[in-house]
Amino acid sequence: MFMGSFCLLGQTKSDAIAIRSIYNYHLSNSKSYSNLHDLCKNIGGRLSGSPQAAKAVEWAAKAMWDAGADTVFLVPCMVPHWERGAKEIGEIRNRKDIKNLSVCALGGSVETGASGILAQVVEVASFEELDKLGEKGVRGKIVFYNVSFNPEWINTGASYGSNVKYRTSGASRAAKWGAVASVVKSMTLSDNDFPHTGVMNYDTLVKEKIPAFAISAKGARELAEELHREKNSSLYLFSDCKMLKDEPSFSVVGEIRGNETPNDILVAGGHLDSWDLGEGAHDDGAGVVQSIEILAAIKNCKIKNKKTIRVIAFMNEENGLRGANAYLAFAEKEKKRHLGAIESDGGGLSPRSLGISTQGDTLLYFKKWNPLFAPYDIQIIGGGGGADVGPLKKMGAFEMSLIVDNQRYFDYHHTRDDVFENVHKRELELGAAAMTALIYLFDKYGF
Amino acid sequence: MFMGSFCLLGQTKSDAIAIRSIYNYHLSNSKSYSNLHDLCKNIGGRLSGSPQAAKAVEWAAKAMWDAGADTVFLVPCMVPHWERGAKEIGEIRNRKDIKNLSVCALGGSVETGASGILAQVVEVASFEELDKLGEKGVRGKIVFYNVSFNPEWINTGASYGSNVKYRTSGASRAAKWGAVASVVKSMTLSDNDFPHTGVMNYDTLVKEKIPAFAISAKGARELAEELHREKNSSLYLFSDCKMLKDEPSFSVVGEIRGNETPNDILVAGGHLDSWDLGEGAHDDGAGVVQSIEILAAIKNCKIKNKKTIRVIAFMNEENGLRGANAYLAFAEKEKKRHLGAIESDGGGLSPRSLGISTQGDTLLYFKKWNPLFAPYDIQIIGGGGGADVGPLKKMGAFEMSLIVDNQRYFDYHHTRDDVFENVHKRELELGAAAMTALIYLFDKYGF
Repeated sequence: MFMGSFCLLGQTKSDAIAIRSIYNYHLSNSKSYSNLHDLCKNIGGRLSGSPQAAKAVEWAAKAMWDAGADTVFLVPCMVPHWERGAKEIGEIRNRKDIKNLSVCALGGSVETGASGILAQVVEVASFEELDKLGEKGVRGKIVFYNVSFNPEWINTGASYGSNVKYRTSGASRAAKWGAVASVVKSMTLSDNDFPHTGVMNYDTLVKEKIPAFAISAKGARELAEELHREKNSSLYLFSDCKMLKDEPSFSVVGEIRGNETPNDILVAGGHLDSWDLGEGAHDDGAGVVQSIEILAAIKNCKIKNKKTIRVIAFMNEENGLRGANAYLAFAEKEKKRHLGAIESDGGGLSPRSLGISTQGDTLLYFKKWNPLFAPYDIQIIGGGGGADVGPLKKMGAFEMSLIVDNQRYFDYHHTRDDVFENVHKRELELGAAAMTALIYLFDKYGF
Repeated sequence: MFMGSFCLLGQTKSDAIAIRSIYNYHLSNSKSYSNLHDLCKNIGGRLSGSPQAAKAVEWAAKAMWDAGADTVFLVPCMVPHWERGAKEIGEIRNRKDIKNLSVCALGGSVETGASGILAQVVEVASFEELDKLGEKGVRGKIVFYNVSFNPEWINTGASYGSNVKYRTSGASRAAKWGAVASVVKSMTLSDNDFPHTGVMNYDTLVKEKIPAFAISAKGARELAEELHREKNSSLYLFSDCKMLKDEPSFSVVGEIRGNETPNDILVAGGHLDSWDLGEGAHDDGAGVVQSIEILAAIKNCKIKNKKTIRVIAFMNEENGLRGANAYLAFAEKEKKRHLGAIESDGGGLSPRSLGISTQGDTLLYFKKWNPLFAPYDIQIIGGGGGADVGPLKKMGAFEMSLIVDNQRYFDYHHTRDDVFENVHKRELELGAAAMTALIYLFDKYGF
């Protein structure tokens, strides 16, 4: 609206037509949804180091060729290899009976040992509360981080950012005071019975490594109620997960070479690995198939890209970022200019904006493109990026992201409910279209 | 952003705080989701004239009292009373076998008679095509309107607006050429097996009333494939639906009287009736519970409204608009000023904007409020309204609407899949919060 006055480029009309054709391709002919179906149903969850992840590498390479890449190559990396094991048990045990709770081991956790862990539970709402209890209150017990997302925060990602420390660091923080295991309330606003896994790390300064679990929101509620009724109830936990030795793996790169300045690179990507519980549909099969479909849209819409458009299915975002770091090392050697890198890793949900990590006049330059996005109810805003494209800041690239409506994301995130059926075809396609349109404009007008 | 320069009202900070408290109420304490559960599960589908619709009137009155209305009253209207009957059958019958298709009678249709209708099918893609076939091509046959939504249109509501004529008028248009029944492809972009009902009307200039059906998207695909293979296949249709005599019913009105100018009215509403196949969750239980919760938010946030805030659960939006028209007649007699009326009837989906049916300087006046909505990723835009608030234009009211992300709406609309489980708690609450914030500002600054 007010931006209209900026929009006096001679190319505006042809850009509007090109972007319309990009959207038409994605909404009518794209393979993003069928590709996602294939990835989710024929490969499924694909944690780094797993046979499924290896299969996904081959799958992504083929999908990129099929989409019209003129070059597809693999960038190797060594990845952690953690396995969940055969079963996981969480049980409240009080004097009267045993009650099952939905739990899962956090990624990277040590196992409980064959007999499991049975101990009293101490519930805390923060690290401060834990530290106040100290060794006297914690030694020999299981620490239960019962911390909820704040429903008043509009952006669910902000809640995740605020609470995830209890998942990533909770075990070592508890072990420091002599705890025997830790359990964290799942990172979600929903009240269902899916435990949410995700990475955890052991603090190298804390000698003892204790098993780390997540409990479903429903389970957390039930456990808290039990502790309220019967302070001395015990929790029994079992997991036979294990960390194996690192495995070789790959990020997959497919590109369409630029027609004018092929050594200028624009990156679009998502991550190919996923947690093992579900199918990695929203996280981040969606980002992978959307990125691959950018190549197909460029071919289909007969766009003559000036710069090289490079699509990357990054390996190991979930528990190491090894693929992203290996790609940075590769790029530093390759010495091609990386001008911009967009990531889709917020789920295949309805797109709301395109974030670019800049501000001031530079941001205003990009915002000149906003009238072109208005028909699609999308706008360019400041701030953006993603875990995988973050390292490319070192190459001078603008970090960018597809920003989607995030109210539903943490309903599925890292659970067995992150399946193909929970991704909406058009929402997925609209996201891919917005990404393609931004890449088209960035390619044409650069910065 | 650019609107910021307009935002120099002395009240901006206190308004920001008030709107934050409104959002906090809706996201933390509101009853909109539990009310929707109650309405959907304990009453369910509530077509005008049905016992469920009568029960819903009582339910809404109680819910408004509970929400804090200081007055609740009913505005009577006579409503059409159509019943679906006990069963509906659609079958492809060719020389070899019988294949079931998912069909449903359209609301208002006549029955097929006890032996049903068996006839050859003529498929058309438009009224033009139908008229070109004329009596020679149509007489004695079933007309199949196989018209899809255009996936390239971003706004699914625009597709609905473009295609719904085949549902509303298709039967009479076909009967004019001697057809014995009509079948319309469901109004949806999804490819599932739910037939979508909805209102149809008989043209009084066409003597013959023929039965009118909808077929699921999957069924339409299968029927078209069958006709492609075997042009002379027949379709068997059965419905024992019937139109009964009009019934007395009511719209439900609950208000909180204004503290300064109580004869100035602001209306917020949705419609209480729904189609019978599902639970009327998105359409429009959502709008009803959101509107009711505006009253609760005003009470809970201790807002001293200057004008009277009137919440209306309109009866009979789906097949007659009798409630809305009766309310207009009531308001014309009552002679209170109706300044604005907002409707939520796009489903309980994630809100994107608030539409106000005005333009030019008047629209700019309202857009001054946009910085207050920015933290919630909402903006005021031109254009808005709804079927129920439309008549209030005659009273001088601004027609307004909650505009939501509409990609999923026609997946559920008028089907047995329009159930509580398909409404997301936070999306519903965010919509109610946006409506309340607009009512708050309109009450305070008027126009």
